Amino acid sequence: MKTRAAVAFGAGQKLEVTEVDLDGPRAGEVLVEVKATGICHTDAFTLSGADPEGAFPSILGHEGAGVVVDVGPEVTSVKKGDHVIPLYTPECRECEYCLNPKTNLCQAIRSTQGQGVMPDGTSRFSLDGKPINHFMGTSTFSNYTVLPEIAVAKIREDAPFDKVCYIGCGVTTGIGAVVNTAKVEPGANVVVFGLGGIGLNVIQGARMVGANMIVGVDLNNEKKAWGERFGMTHFVNPGEIEGDLVPYLVELTGGGADYSFECVGNVKLMRQALECAHKGWGQSIIIGVAGAGEEISTRPVQLVTGRTWKGSAFGGARGRTDVPRIVDWYMDGKIEIDPMITQTLSLDEINKGFDLMHEGKSIRSVVVY
Amino acid sequence: MKTRAAVAFGAGQKLEVTEVDLDGPRAGEVLVEVKATGICHTDAFTLSGADPEGAFPSILGHEGAGVVVDVGPEVTSVKKGDHVIPLYTPECRECEYCLNPKTNLCQAIRSTQGQGVMPDGTSRFSLDGKPINHFMGTSTFSNYTVLPEIAVAKIREDAPFDKVCYIGCGVTTGIGAVVNTAKVEPGANVVVFGLGGIGLNVIQGARMVGANMIVGVDLNNEKKAWGERFGMTHFVNPGEIEGDLVPYLVELTGGGADYSFECVGNVKLMRQALECAHKGWGQSIIIGVAGAGEEISTRPVQLVTGRTWKGSAFGGARGRTDVPRIVDWYMDGKIEIDPMITQTLSLDEINKGFDLMHEGKSIRSVVVY
Repeated sequence: MKTRAAVAFGAGQKLEVTEVDLDGPRAGEVLVEVKATGICHTDAFTLSGADPEGAFPSILGHEGAGVVVDVGPEVTSVKKGDHVIPLYTPECRECEYCLNPKTNLCQAIRSTQGQGVMPDGTSRFSLDGKPINHFMGTSTFSNYTVLPEIAVAKIREDAPFDKVCYIGCGVTTGIGAVVNTAKVEPGANVVVFGLGGIGLNVIQGARMVGANMIVGVDLNNEKKAWGERFGMTHFVNPGEIEGDLVPYLVELTGGGADYSFECVGNVKLMRQALECAHKGWGQSIIIGVAGAGEEISTRPVQLVTGRTWKGSAFGGARGRTDVPRIVDWYMDGKIEIDPMITQTLSLDEINKGFDLMHEGKSIRSVVVY
Repeated sequence: MKTRAAVAFGAGQKLEVTEVDLDGPRAGEVLVEVKATGICHTDAFTLSGADPEGAFPSILGHEGAGVVVDVGPEVTSVKKGDHVIPLYTPECRECEYCLNPKTNLCQAIRSTQGQGVMPDGTSRFSLDGKPINHFMGTSTFSNYTVLPEIAVAKIREDAPFDKVCYIGCGVTTGIGAVVNTAKVEPGANVVVFGLGGIGLNVIQGARMVGANMIVGVDLNNEKKAWGERFGMTHFVNPGEIEGDLVPYLVELTGGGADYSFECVGNVKLMRQALECAHKGWGQSIIIGVAGAGEEISTRPVQLVTGRTWKGSAFGGARGRTDVPRIVDWYMDGKIEIDPMITQTLSLDEINKGFDLMHEGKSIRSVVVY
């Protein structure tokens, strides 16, 4: 079949919206009509050429929602007409990782996904007979896409695609880090570094679970209103305080953060996030993705005196199990998404979405097909 | 009263065994007749002058066992005749830390302890009218010593002092890191860096809780027999393998350590210990004390892909609660101590104990009064 898609032909180039060929789903695969997709920094990172695993031409996009329109042989978990969110972290429920309750990092299709192909080693996308790479196993910048059935989460049918697509990455990454990775308890003091989309979702996750202080740290004072909109109780601009940030945050929180979250990808902030955690029990969670080769450092006494350093990928969420629950939380009003969707664009306007993100003028731009 | 003690008069000097003056216990304090004390690397570290908090003259020693011979006013938790182990990490059961189940780092008397004095700000020890500093709140290199009652663990009376004194530091530090900090489960694969006294106690802790593989890593092949003596299943000498240590350990453990422990105090080993932990769920616990100013580093992706970096102090143990339990484990044969006590010395021979430790010729030397 044919489908319209935004193709990344090369590093640093604009996406080109064109018609490409799409083979139908093979065994264990499903064909999904993507109804909406968010534009995320990870798409921009790969498009920039900075991602060492990035390959071109490819169809980017990993934050979508849509409808199953066809299924290949042996597919049992979803059927035509099901509403789904594609999962760049799948959940096979059979591998060593899925069977270990301590992790969400299903490895069933990891190597082929990293190579830009389906689990059988081939691509479903092509143009003029030449294959186009999949991206993160999802390629939601295409109106139709093919995914392994283990990489789609079935969701309720009354959930609006143009909002819940954001649960495909940003919402789950932020809220999941609070709920699954850190397991923040009611009454805890939380410090969030970086008030972009991930940071705001960490904030509303902390609000949902009943955190006490929710401190947001950002160099941009315009983020203060955004943070407060989702539950932030205190705002700190490191450029506007006297003295060093870490002791300031320790003082503000009465001894340190019970949980701190780094949502930027800056290794210096990762250290500050760890060191502002409370002696004895503070946990610091790295969510942001650092540049290639960059390293985190601290004195080991920070850990020996009781701080724990962790990371979180896809919010520690098991997609087929946890994503439908997060959709429920949204539909029940426990979390908000609508105000975070700052722009809705057509596929033809997708490059504008990247521009808005680079200019810091969006929390999340969503392409609606 | 008078008591014989080994006094540290200055950095880098030998201890001098002499008679010093000891004031009786004040409110909330107890007088303990020390029956035996281990000689630990931390004593040597402070004696060397490398400890920035070290002060002279002082009476070192923090790994003792003895009998309460007098109690000051308001003491309620122990009485004359009770057998006790002094605690350099006290347990007041009232401070913010004691009331938080996530930590053992009671802060009730931390500042005065660090200053070498009792909680009222004065020293009980003196010589020729000049005060001598306490050390770690314990000063077990004195035949009699005064401690706050929150800094003694009451133990059973049939436990031999010359063995269970080791529970005052090394045994609890190693076994507690396994049981309290890491919470190693039956069937887990464990890697232990450094097969000194702490490493051997980590190994026997892992054996006690039913670990599967217990891999010991040490540059000294003579440690292999020691590790096996306490439950080590595999020995790795990093100097004798081909290629890098981390991938070797990942391969050996079938994907990485479920739990790794650094028991040396070397920041390079701390990184290797983290990076040999299993993707998705591996935890690495720092026990060793690094040199002043040294830092640990790694790429943040190590944490984002599911590894956790922690530290452990006094094995995460709450002394008054957990130390008597560990004494029971020893008396019940669940753990061994006797073969680790490689030398028994008199107080007059205490400097020989330091020499043996520096020469690597002891696991633990114990002074018996």
